[in-house]
Amino acid sequence: MLNKKQVVQALEKVMDPEIGRSIVELGMVREVKVVGSRVKVVIALTIPNCPLKGVIAKDAEEKVAALADGLDVQIELSTMTAEEKKRMTDTLRGQSGAGAQEQGSLTGKLNRVKAVVAVMSGKGGVGKSTAAALLAAGLRRDGLRVGVLDADVTGPSIPKLFGVDDAPVMGPLGIVPPISEQGVKIMSINLMLERKDEAVIWRGPLISGAIKQFWNDVFWGDLDVLVVDLPPGTSDAALTVMQSLPVDGVVIVTSPQDLADMVVRKAANMAEHMKVGIWGIVENMSYVICPHCGERYSLFGEGNAAGMARTFNTQLLAQLPIDPELSRLCDAGQVERYESAEFEGALESLRAKLKGVAVKGSSEH
Amino acid sequence: MLNKKQVVQALEKVMDPEIGRSIVELGMVREVKVVGSRVKVVIALTIPNCPLKGVIAKDAEEKVAALADGLDVQIELSTMTAEEKKRMTDTLRGQSGAGAQEQGSLTGKLNRVKAVVAVMSGKGGVGKSTAAALLAAGLRRDGLRVGVLDADVTGPSIPKLFGVDDAPVMGPLGIVPPISEQGVKIMSINLMLERKDEAVIWRGPLISGAIKQFWNDVFWGDLDVLVVDLPPGTSDAALTVMQSLPVDGVVIVTSPQDLADMVVRKAANMAEHMKVGIWGIVENMSYVICPHCGERYSLFGEGNAAGMARTFNTQLLAQLPIDPELSRLCDAGQVERYESAEFEGALESLRAKLKGVAVKGSSEH
Repeated sequence: MLNKKQVVQALEKVMDPEIGRSIVELGMVREVKVVGSRVKVVIALTIPNCPLKGVIAKDAEEKVAALADGLDVQIELSTMTAEEKKRMTDTLRGQSGAGAQEQGSLTGKLNRVKAVVAVMSGKGGVGKSTAAALLAAGLRRDGLRVGVLDADVTGPSIPKLFGVDDAPVMGPLGIVPPISEQGVKIMSINLMLERKDEAVIWRGPLISGAIKQFWNDVFWGDLDVLVVDLPPGTSDAALTVMQSLPVDGVVIVTSPQDLADMVVRKAANMAEHMKVGIWGIVENMSYVICPHCGERYSLFGEGNAAGMARTFNTQLLAQLPIDPELSRLCDAGQVERYESAEFEGALESLRAKLKGVAVKGSSEH
Repeated sequence: MLNKKQVVQALEKVMDPEIGRSIVELGMVREVKVVGSRVKVVIALTIPNCPLKGVIAKDAEEKVAALADGLDVQIELSTMTAEEKKRMTDTLRGQSGAGAQEQGSLTGKLNRVKAVVAVMSGKGGVGKSTAAALLAAGLRRDGLRVGVLDADVTGPSIPKLFGVDDAPVMGPLGIVPPISEQGVKIMSINLMLERKDEAVIWRGPLISGAIKQFWNDVFWGDLDVLVVDLPPGTSDAALTVMQSLPVDGVVIVTSPQDLADMVVRKAANMAEHMKVGIWGIVENMSYVICPHCGERYSLFGEGNAAGMARTFNTQLLAQLPIDPELSRLCDAGQVERYESAEFEGALESLRAKLKGVAVKGSSEH
């Protein structure tokens, strides 16, 4: 005959996928009732519309159902009370070793981000955000746990590219980032604005503050890689990311124009100056294929991305065409559906770079 | 028989084209010698390699030669001593009404800038700097006195587009901006850097300081229009320009991508918020013409610049193609040589806007 203890033991194996801890340990199992072959479990979620509620419920149901044949398992979902939340955060804080006074750093301590890659360019409009999105989407297709931190506070493109516009939820463990179609976690100022075309008229310190908050106060959970999309320029946003986030490497995006070359080199020089490794260079808008006659030609002259790669002792990861299909998918919020042979090589190199970087909590910086 | 006084009277009509005052009044005529039909004039220039020395010498020679037939006029150029410079600036300061303690504002008081137009975009890489350059070059072709202030401190493109790379000279009246092939005065941080690809890793307050200095401490002299090229974004640079410079209007540059539309609208909303009039919208990269088959097609989808113009109650000034010839001229520093029928309409509207704006000294703000 099944007893309550067995059910709880089974539920101990159900993990909250966000927090990476057992739902029993987190105090999320509020009630377990066993009457004959009927089992009722009430699970209290950390936030009302937890995007992972379906996953947790299914997992719990399967784990309990596996205890015996012919069980009638009923999982009921509820939301934690303030009291329950407090107990959970206290437990986590105790485990993370943080004292009671360090309330603010809890989120950071719980995040386990294996690698941080910043995508930068110096020059705007060369397709930096698109490259960041393709990079994130490609690594996600490999099965990695991927987040994108949009550090372009005054010109945020990431939510639009991924078709995400849910406001982030304030959970007990920090700001919970919304998740794209393919499972990439997204954080951007534009998710917080009432109107997407609202201007964020902020001077540098506020920009820096927002970026630090996106790192410290967002509950990224376990990530294999966090891709940071930097704005053009080498001012506050880039400085804050390189100084306050544990950036493992930068990917530089350029275009074939001479003018881009000069400005993009400024960004690469900044990375060198800040002692951040340059993992490679992506040349975008390298060529175009006429939809009428099929001829391939260069719109902006022949670029010198290979020369730039040599100067900075790094690799030319890819040369991408201007592809109307990519534009269409970007405008439709479906950048994740784009696959290109040209970008595959870039991903291959980055996969190699990602091996061997150390795990870090976001509060370490 | 010609006498010295007649020569000096003739020289009173020779203006220093920069300062807009007579070279006699400025104390630049150091010596006048008349022996029979031979006249020798020594003119002391404010700076050793004054770019306008040829103009001044020729003008002086002609004015003196016109006094009588068969004169042998010899103009000798020298440079002002520290004492002479001090006397000149004291004279100018007295005329401008500034007290002796207000040394710093002299340059600002001497500048007479009729109109300030800021070119902004929010989004990078839509061709904002190119549009600013085409605008300046077009107005210059009309015979207007035009300056370009490059407010994109971390990604400056203006000197490259105009093919200017002389360092600005520190004259007695302020920083003297170099002048392009067609006579446009240029000021940009990149003229000050030893290496053009050096990163300017500055936080907001330094960026703002540089922009204010480009306005207050640069000796623009008499300008019909100063075109300000803003960086992407709605942070420090844009704020400083809109708050510290007497901007008469902004021209917004966009591209047909949905993504650009959203980010560019942020910039337009900022202009509205800052109560700066939007003089019009330029859509760049609207289409491309295949060099092989001659077909015209859009690379980035059909844009909505007309809709944006309606939203902000302004005009769509132009829709420009991606033109490899323009790219080539930009890369070669010859943007001024580009003429396009598409841009002519934009210039026509702006000429109308420029009529009726009030003259202002740069120290008024």
